[in-house]
Amino acid sequence: MSSMEHQDVLKGRYVQIDDNEWKPFPSALSEGGISWKLLNVSPEMGSWAAIFDCPEGSSFNRHVHIGPGEYFLTKGRMEVRGGHDEGGSTAVAPGYGYEPCNARHDFTNFTEDSEFYMTFLGPLQFIDEEGNTLALVTWEGAQAAWEAS
Amino acid sequence: MSSMEHQDVLKGRYVQIDDNEWKPFPSALSEGGISWKLLNVSPEMGSWAAIFDCPEGSSFNRHVHIGPGEYFLTKGRMEVRGGHDEGGSTAVAPGYGYEPCNARHDFTNFTEDSEFYMTFLGPLQFIDEEGNTLALVTWEGAQAAWEAS
Amino acid sequence: MSSMEHQDVLKGRYVQIDDNEWKPFPSALSEGGISWKLLNVSPEMGSWAAIFDCPEGSSFNRHVHIGPGEYFLTKGRMEVRGGHDEGGSTAVAPGYGYEPCNARHDFTNFTEDSEFYMTFLGPLQFIDEEGNTLALVTWEGAQAAWEAS
Amino acid sequence: MSSMEHQDVLKGRYVQIDDNEWKPFPSALSEGGISWKLLNVSPEMGSWAAIFDCPEGSSFNRHVHIGPGEYFLTKGRMEVRGGHDEGGSTAVAPGYGYEPCNARHDFTNFTEDSEFYMTFLGPLQFIDEEGNTLALVTWEGAQAAWEAS
Repeated sequence: MSSMEHQDVLKGRYVQIDDNEWKPFPSALSEGGISWKLLNVSPEMGSWAAIFDCPEGSSFNRHVHIGPGEYFLTKGRMEVRGGHDEGGSTAVAPGYGYEPCNARHDFTNFTEDSEFYMTFLGPLQFIDEEGNTLALVTWEGAQAAWEAS
Repeated sequence: MSSMEHQDVLKGRYVQIDDNEWKPFPSALSEGGISWKLLNVSPEMGSWAAIFDCPEGSSFNRHVHIGPGEYFLTKGRMEVRGGHDEGGSTAVAPGYGYEPCNARHDFTNFTEDSEFYMTFLGPLQFIDEEGNTLALVTWEGAQAAWEAS
Repeated sequence: MSSMEHQDVLKGRYVQIDDNEWKPFPSALSEGGISWKLLNVSPEMGSWAAIFDCPEGSSFNRHVHIGPGEYFLTKGRMEVRGGHDEGGSTAVAPGYGYEPCNARHDFTNFTEDSEFYMTFLGPLQFIDEEGNTLALVTWEGAQAAWEAS
Repeated sequence: MSSMEHQDVLKGRYVQIDDNEWKPFPSALSEGGISWKLLNVSPEMGSWAAIFDCPEGSSFNRHVHIGPGEYFLTKGRMEVRGGHDEGGSTAVAPGYGYEPCNARHDFTNFTEDSEFYMTFLGPLQFIDEEGNTLALVTWEGAQAAWEAS
């Protein structure tokens, strides 16, 4: 016989952000020296949270948000989906953005030294120009990358 | 110093439905002898899944879905939000329905012996006619009700 | 100036399952003549729901659940992750299963004519033996496959 | 006949935070002059995002997180669940916290002028000492409160 498993309320978690050092974000997924701190992974939902430090001139490679993502830009300027002039968004700190599930970001770049905090439900799918998967970065992959560096 | 906590992939779960007996669904929340089997609770997201046996003439009390719910009616006939003639849905087995986050169900009733399986993200808020909360049934409350009976 | 956008409560949806015909599930993703009916896609969360008809001897190709999935087996017998004898689950109707986010299913097969209903949060990642992505089936891809056939 | 409804990918959203003015957070739910800016509501999942300005000595009334919440404290000091000395968390900017689904916060207070950004999946249930619901603040209620002020 198999019945429902009892489950308990989870415990709260806290990360003192400035006690953790910046680590390089994988260079296969970005250019120009982006670093990050992974703050949380939630394995049941597949969500994760991180903060990114993005020097002037840096960028993230082409990707699709497989699940909604929300960012809070605390410093600088971020051009999303080509920026406002190309039909995307130009975020200027302090700015908030909601990137929907399956939004494709061909180019996300920083024209000033910038910093943003972001929560992700689901993975980032890094793709080539034709949409083929180059890497699927789930909460588990993000955690593995963080712990390996 | 406090850093990100490592998390592991969860384990799969299985419930042999017919090995578990039907229990009465709380009579404060329903009328006419509805019984249920709780199948799963997911404490991180706050989702839960159950199967309900609803005799002809039974009904659920007025409630709001705090989070989306999806049902699969395997037997019988269910009148949702007053049924099709009142602008709601009349489900006839085999039928699938999506009830959105914050949908208010003033009356859900069964005009035949019926059975349905449903997944819930978030709680059910049972309310009075003015919308005051009578009971907020979260995954944790559903589990407590199930284990107490 | 850009402010918060007003959002409305969604409308309920209903699908009369037997009014819709079975369509072949993509043969690149399964073997043995599996057919399906797509019942819902939820674009904000990236969830979707479907019902599958799986003849004796059929199987799904190797895949990872990128997000939790819950199934309700209404008919037959399904061997998940190799089945109970290999450390996985053997589902026998009526059976409920919870497959967690990032669960890898090397082989899911049916030893009898079977039918199951399943809800998915997030995509299915079909992979080769080394874990390389062969196809990432999101709600959007599931909808496109359904509408094309 | 009723079939699956076609759904489209959502559009991205952007809020220029400093173009929006602070509004008082409802005094029935807090003390000491907390103000806020609502940044987003997601009606399908029931999630929402906001930024809060909390003067020294202010506090939120007793509440339960019905769904997980993640905060990023950008300024000041926040005592969560009584603070570190009482078994809770003391957040010091820059700090990140994960408050799980069904976490009860009897007292959340600010011992310095503070500011934090927070994302919520699901509502806040404000309660009395016995756990009775005083107010259930869903995405829809948060939006209504924001638009009314």
